[in-house]
Amino acid sequence: MENKTKIKRVRPIRWTDGCLRILDQTRLPAESVYLDLVYWSDVVEAIQALRVRGAPAIGIAGAYALALAAHDLLDLKMDEFLNQLGEIATRIIATRPTAVNLDWAVSRTLRAAHEAETPQESMGLLAAEARAIESENTVSDEKIVDHGVGLVPGGSAILTYCNTGSLATGALGTALGIIRRAWGQGKVERVVVPETRPLLQGSRLTAWELVREEIPFVVVVDGAVGYLMYQHLVTMVLVGADRIASNGDVANKIGTYPLAVLANSHNLPFYVAAPLSSVDLEAETGNDIPIEERSPEEVLSFAGQSVTPQQIGVLNPAFDITPARFISAIVTDVGVLFPPYGPKLQEAKARNA
Amino acid sequence: MENKTKIKRVRPIRWTDGCLRILDQTRLPAESVYLDLVYWSDVVEAIQALRVRGAPAIGIAGAYALALAAHDLLDLKMDEFLNQLGEIATRIIATRPTAVNLDWAVSRTLRAAHEAETPQESMGLLAAEARAIESENTVSDEKIVDHGVGLVPGGSAILTYCNTGSLATGALGTALGIIRRAWGQGKVERVVVPETRPLLQGSRLTAWELVREEIPFVVVVDGAVGYLMYQHLVTMVLVGADRIASNGDVANKIGTYPLAVLANSHNLPFYVAAPLSSVDLEAETGNDIPIEERSPEEVLSFAGQSVTPQQIGVLNPAFDITPARFISAIVTDVGVLFPPYGPKLQEAKARNA
Repeated sequence: MENKTKIKRVRPIRWTDGCLRILDQTRLPAESVYLDLVYWSDVVEAIQALRVRGAPAIGIAGAYALALAAHDLLDLKMDEFLNQLGEIATRIIATRPTAVNLDWAVSRTLRAAHEAETPQESMGLLAAEARAIESENTVSDEKIVDHGVGLVPGGSAILTYCNTGSLATGALGTALGIIRRAWGQGKVERVVVPETRPLLQGSRLTAWELVREEIPFVVVVDGAVGYLMYQHLVTMVLVGADRIASNGDVANKIGTYPLAVLANSHNLPFYVAAPLSSVDLEAETGNDIPIEERSPEEVLSFAGQSVTPQQIGVLNPAFDITPARFISAIVTDVGVLFPPYGPKLQEAKARNA
Repeated sequence: MENKTKIKRVRPIRWTDGCLRILDQTRLPAESVYLDLVYWSDVVEAIQALRVRGAPAIGIAGAYALALAAHDLLDLKMDEFLNQLGEIATRIIATRPTAVNLDWAVSRTLRAAHEAETPQESMGLLAAEARAIESENTVSDEKIVDHGVGLVPGGSAILTYCNTGSLATGALGTALGIIRRAWGQGKVERVVVPETRPLLQGSRLTAWELVREEIPFVVVVDGAVGYLMYQHLVTMVLVGADRIASNGDVANKIGTYPLAVLANSHNLPFYVAAPLSSVDLEAETGNDIPIEERSPEEVLSFAGQSVTPQQIGVLNPAFDITPARFISAIVTDVGVLFPPYGPKLQEAKARNA
């Protein structure tokens, strides 16, 4: 087992009464800058700009944003308070459409507000609900890791993608949490980290976490994954999810789907790790998941410098869909699910509703 | 047919007696800077630093480098002249190991030097041989385009990769030459250009050529290719090659192999376009092709700025191998070859030795 005292876990989100402190992930790894946010709209800006990112983390941040919003509405009558809070919730949810956790967490927090009789009381319930979501997520990560580590045999060369660690969840992490635990158990020979263009969550953020925890790894460009598999330098792929449809199709960071197709072609297992809060039974398949299209600037320039000719066409989808047939197993907080996913996801959600 | 008078073709390499002028491709698209090189070692530096790149273009540049080397050896006796020239040829060839065109062109030029009786005479033969290689390559590109355009049906959405245009060959280009001709014939609905990390030959160089020629295109990150195919936004893939083994396995820019696997998974044709000079019958399969490993800095920094934590491990193979079974056809200057490639490549090389 890992030496738990050794790991200084980063806290990318920290709530203290009326203030949400977030670590600005756009400035990592160069500097660790914390922002103290007291207006809900500043949290929305931070989510939009990816200062806080990762499906579970933006759910938690969105929930706290709603608690912050209540502060500004205390003078209203209860009806009007709830109306305006509902409108703000809709705006928070719309900030990033793909990860269902944002919708899930903000909607749940909003429901809690309705249990109160006054705005003041409601504000307390909002903060309490956001805190509950945050602490449930900590437990959920632990369970995902407990279940997932059993899928990792000794001598594994694990390829992960984007960032699914503490920065993405505020806790142990999902896929990266499993890697950390498996490393502690001596099962990991190599971690391979594709850089994850356009925003380099792999070579900036996952690399930053692995350096802190002294887990050895190599960074590669995203296009090198095929060659590494061809050279037998990868034995499994383990990624997170932003939304899982009820048939097991997975939306995750753009570039995930090619990893699944390559893993399949090389007979390597392809695992997805995510909490049940990432499962959206209302999406029948991946085609029902909205894919966020982000600014062309993310592709055309780098650190403010233009790298391409001016005014050219760009497509910049932030996520892609991996069809369920490419996924060997989905690791959730209630256990490891194997295909066919449909009935198992529905049963797990029903049991944990 | 395209309007040939409209296209102002770029000249990335231009020889005038005793001086090789090259367009510094590392500075594109921001600025067009030409370098006048008179020492062979400066040409080697330019090849190493990718100021001139593309398999055919580095072959031509390497041949001229040998002609420049002769200038500095004219005082030697013929035996010693040839000895030293041979050593320099070996050093030029070693600059970039994967593209066989460099070895092929420099070795051929060196053989020409042996036909002379004096260093002075030899120098003339070297320059003449380099010029012959350059002009044969111009003809070869035209033939590749003539043959390849027949593979492009109307309404095509062509995904290409890296840069295979005039910048890569000094002439019409290979894969990008076919796209240009097919566009002129009204067959191209969309050109998709992955950026091609780490050095962005797609979003910098192919984009620069397409802008000049007013051919519409979209740039995407390399990881987005799977999603574009999933969304039916690509109908064929057309790439170049740095070396083709005698069984049809292809070495090309890192990231090519995933495109082939994805095309295969989506039942899309995957075509390779390259001159016969890129075929190396001495390599039985892709496993016999040396893969250049380049500096970690190409991955760790972007436009000169460090983007990752310091001192982390990186693998930076510059090429990968696409097994022949993923390749629908190979377009050469002597025609389009379909599988099985082995006997056809051998026959074509024998006929054109």
